[in-house]
Amino acid sequence: MAARGRCVLQRVFTVLRAPTVYHRQLQFWSVNGSSAGPSSLSFRSHTCGELTAHHVGERVSLCGWVQYLRQDMFVILRDFSGLIQVLIPQEEVSMKMIQTPKYNIISTTNNLKTSPSTRSIEILAESVEVFNVCRTLPFEIKDFVKKSESLRMQYRYLDLRSSQMQKNLRLRSQLVMKMREYLCNVHGFVDVETPTLFKRTPGGAKEFVVPSREPGRFYSLPQSPQQFKQLLMVAGIDRYFQMARCYRDEGSRPDRQPEFTQVDIEMSFVDQAGIMSLVEGLLQYSWPAEKGPIKVPFQTMTYEEAMRDYGVDKPDTRFSMKLMDLSEVFLSTEINFLRSALSQPEGSVQAIRVPSGAVRANPFPQARMYLYVNSSSVSPSYCTSRSQRPLLGNVRLLCAELLESRGVSVRDPSAFRFLWVVDFPLFLSKEEEPEQLESAHHPFTAALPEDTQLLYTEPHKVRGQHYDLVLNGCEIGGGSIRIHNASEQLYVLKNILKEDPSLLSHLLEALDSGAPPHGGIALGFDRLVSIIVGAPSIRDVIAFPKSFRGQDLMSCAPDFVSEEELKSYHISVKWPTEDEQTASGRCSSL
Amino acid sequence: MAARGRCVLQRVFTVLRAPTVYHRQLQFWSVNGSSAGPSSLSFRSHTCGELTAHHVGERVSLCGWVQYLRQDMFVILRDFSGLIQVLIPQEEVSMKMIQTPKYNIISTTNNLKTSPSTRSIEILAESVEVFNVCRTLPFEIKDFVKKSESLRMQYRYLDLRSSQMQKNLRLRSQLVMKMREYLCNVHGFVDVETPTLFKRTPGGAKEFVVPSREPGRFYSLPQSPQQFKQLLMVAGIDRYFQMARCYRDEGSRPDRQPEFTQVDIEMSFVDQAGIMSLVEGLLQYSWPAEKGPIKVPFQTMTYEEAMRDYGVDKPDTRFSMKLMDLSEVFLSTEINFLRSALSQPEGSVQAIRVPSGAVRANPFPQARMYLYVNSSSVSPSYCTSRSQRPLLGNVRLLCAELLESRGVSVRDPSAFRFLWVVDFPLFLSKEEEPEQLESAHHPFTAALPEDTQLLYTEPHKVRGQHYDLVLNGCEIGGGSIRIHNASEQLYVLKNILKEDPSLLSHLLEALDSGAPPHGGIALGFDRLVSIIVGAPSIRDVIAFPKSFRGQDLMSCAPDFVSEEELKSYHISVKWPTEDEQTASGRCSSL
Repeated sequence: MAARGRCVLQRVFTVLRAPTVYHRQLQFWSVNGSSAGPSSLSFRSHTCGELTAHHVGERVSLCGWVQYLRQDMFVILRDFSGLIQVLIPQEEVSMKMIQTPKYNIISTTNNLKTSPSTRSIEILAESVEVFNVCRTLPFEIKDFVKKSESLRMQYRYLDLRSSQMQKNLRLRSQLVMKMREYLCNVHGFVDVETPTLFKRTPGGAKEFVVPSREPGRFYSLPQSPQQFKQLLMVAGIDRYFQMARCYRDEGSRPDRQPEFTQVDIEMSFVDQAGIMSLVEGLLQYSWPAEKGPIKVPFQTMTYEEAMRDYGVDKPDTRFSMKLMDLSEVFLSTEINFLRSALSQPEGSVQAIRVPSGAVRANPFPQARMYLYVNSSSVSPSYCTSRSQRPLLGNVRLLCAELLESRGVSVRDPSAFRFLWVVDFPLFLSKEEEPEQLESAHHPFTAALPEDTQLLYTEPHKVRGQHYDLVLNGCEIGGGSIRIHNASEQLYVLKNILKEDPSLLSHLLEALDSGAPPHGGIALGFDRLVSIIVGAPSIRDVIAFPKSFRGQDLMSCAPDFVSEEELKSYHISVKWPTEDEQTASGRCSSL
Repeated sequence: MAARGRCVLQRVFTVLRAPTVYHRQLQFWSVNGSSAGPSSLSFRSHTCGELTAHHVGERVSLCGWVQYLRQDMFVILRDFSGLIQVLIPQEEVSMKMIQTPKYNIISTTNNLKTSPSTRSIEILAESVEVFNVCRTLPFEIKDFVKKSESLRMQYRYLDLRSSQMQKNLRLRSQLVMKMREYLCNVHGFVDVETPTLFKRTPGGAKEFVVPSREPGRFYSLPQSPQQFKQLLMVAGIDRYFQMARCYRDEGSRPDRQPEFTQVDIEMSFVDQAGIMSLVEGLLQYSWPAEKGPIKVPFQTMTYEEAMRDYGVDKPDTRFSMKLMDLSEVFLSTEINFLRSALSQPEGSVQAIRVPSGAVRANPFPQARMYLYVNSSSVSPSYCTSRSQRPLLGNVRLLCAELLESRGVSVRDPSAFRFLWVVDFPLFLSKEEEPEQLESAHHPFTAALPEDTQLLYTEPHKVRGQHYDLVLNGCEIGGGSIRIHNASEQLYVLKNILKEDPSLLSHLLEALDSGAPPHGGIALGFDRLVSIIVGAPSIRDVIAFPKSFRGQDLMSCAPDFVSEEELKSYHISVKWPTEDEQTASGRCSSL
């Protein structure tokens, strides 16, 4: 039988003297002993940040990075939880300190003392062990040191040591844990993993392909587990959720990631109100305490109302400046272009009032109101007749930015305004081919019960049982009650969308096998976390994000693969001509 | 403001009469009201399986599939939790029953009664609503109905309705939830998601490639988050875990999946004993109660001992039949081939004793002992000198199978025997080039402290700080304490393994940036769950597995993609000649 417990280090602890805590930012623990808590089973007895005056009299063992040295006697020791000052005795100084430049990683067995005057603590080291030495780093691990985005990405493992990134990733982990508790333990959801190597969806232009060993055949990395979640309802799983990895190949788009995470939920025997209540409960339950409570139910608004009042389907309701219809005011105007606009069918005059606009927004010192004249031709569809409103919606947001840049408080950065937007049109006219309809969200969304008959007569007028969740003007989730009737689904695919239903034959067969009424939602988890922590980009809540060109700047992925290695996948590279080539940043020369 | 709560159905409930429960297999809930539990926020008030005599007097609402009809009056209603008998009143029968063949999905508002004699319950329906109708299914949803594997895969959404698959997926979900609680809530681990679009690892022949929009550049789907977990330790995350999706392209191998899930764990400032204790605690905490408690600590055995006693590095310790060395017995034998074997260096005579072997194992009625004569040439390496032992290890397992097929109980199917195997050789000789060493597990494993100096003198003798977790003869996990010193890692890569260290330059740089001592483990979650539930294949614990050829037989993935769609990825298909083509099952003709 093998000996158990080869411990690299053996240590004992007691407690002695004087102290200063620098900061403590994370403390979610209050356990005794080493059988649980953030120091269980490790070389340390405590984290740097958790020590308080209450620990005086104990011997402790700490492990961490040397943040800096003071007077060749004090080490400011850092771990994920905070900093603490350690006084190194003279005999240790001579031996160890020379080897201990910045950011070396050390362990120390210490005696702990308080300074009663300051109520802060400090460590007197009994022994110090240097675990590893550290080269000169490309940047200092200090919050106030500004680094370029590309340097941060190239040395992500250093960037993640910053207190902000530590906080973001730890909050993300705690949030997802609470969400799981709510779904699994409170509401009986089943966490089911679905494949990411799947079949290309019809029109899935944004799906990455993965060559297989069968010539010409490719898997596809799905944009969401939409088909699987519906199949799981047919399978009687009843309540499914998954923190689902999703993939979308959009080339270079700012603040998009080729892989991202969504909280993916589906329920059987549920209606729109049920899903909305579930999500409200989910967010309320998992919401970080330090961000203050959130109130439920959330405000609800129809798509129609959102477009009318805000000119956008994801209004930021932290501020007003709503669109106003001034058509009545100008009914008998003499001004020509206004009269002309109002004389057209559905022609209108719209405005927003910008408080303080005249005073602060210098570029337009004369303007308090922005007028918007709708003189566009009016299309027959429900959803496109107001298609010019987004212009004024944009002006509204630009005004808010402008005012804020001049010091006017418009949007409270600490407020979280959730909003449901409902009653979306089910179909939109295709831009390039306005006679032809396409799904506003996806082809599986059911019509509102009162609109279902319109499917067969005036499909452009049908509203869907779709709901978007908006937070502070960002869409953070969307879902719907699905079509559970095979013939209705077939009609939508074939007769309305003119798509080839054979590509979804497995789903149609499944609906025909006793599919229950079902619906669900997907929340964009990266975006949600970034709003909660106030991060400017979702890259700040993802441990190893890609650059906006889709590159990992640390490892230089994607990278070249030999033709030999591609052989088993029956593919070869089609190299572009010299004219077509473009450079692409740090990794392009490799 | 939009009206909220468009409920497809409005129902009220009360309670009346006579009952029979068929079975109830799942009951993890004991809540009142609809704000929590498996029926919260849905059309039903209860699940079929949870109703007991205690509910008599209540009005309930149920939703489910018609399992079968009896006497045109009784519907046996099924949901995920079980079955219940519903008596349909005459006026409803006339109207609804004609539309209600098998497996149609219905909702019913009911009155509940007990039959006091049987203590079972039955439902008297007040109203019945048919949600959906069901075509004739390709097989019946009954546990005793045998289906072919390919039919199960093609109609997976029906196969998942079986009580066994429901049980497997629900147990899997509960197991992972408990594991997360243990890691996050008890030990302060941070759940961090790492990318699956990454750079090809050196020699990563089993990694799927994903073409990017940059000509010739490919992402790779990693076999594990090994590099990321180590980088997270350098980043000060301190304790990381993830239920990690991993990918391995092995072509056609039985019971392997191209994507699979591992419980991925890494800790800083920890030694081998710490990780082993953590995993023991993890399994003990999350172990399903119905499988009985498991005892910790687990048995530990060195690689040397495992090979000596069982002829394999993952012994099934549920039964004995150990390898015995009979060399001494035969020291003065006259039998030529034995004498010849024993005269060679390290030559030996080995045997296993098979209890009941002579009686039950008819093919060899004369044999009670299997002799094994080691007359192989002896290689100089620590690990290969006993390389012939696996033969007898295999005989041991074959004997167990043979005896069991004859009705002798050898391995207790309800027993769970965990075993740690430690002190593996760090390097093995390459088969095709025995002078050259390769990593026994991976190049990041640290040597045992007492063997570290041998790295520079006799690397083939070095044992690694690697540990495998074995359950009932299956390897379900493996991990190690990692090299945290950059120069040691460089020496191993360059001087021992003769690999190009530039491919791992980001990891070497990271180790040089104050990497803490760290180590971790990865548990094969699919395999673990399959052993717990006693499933013959990991396909039985994965919702949508691939066939052994890597195909999804339901959707026919992988599938053909047009050359047009491949253009943006700068690749084209190299079609094999007719001779090279092979057929490949259901989806090949598409």
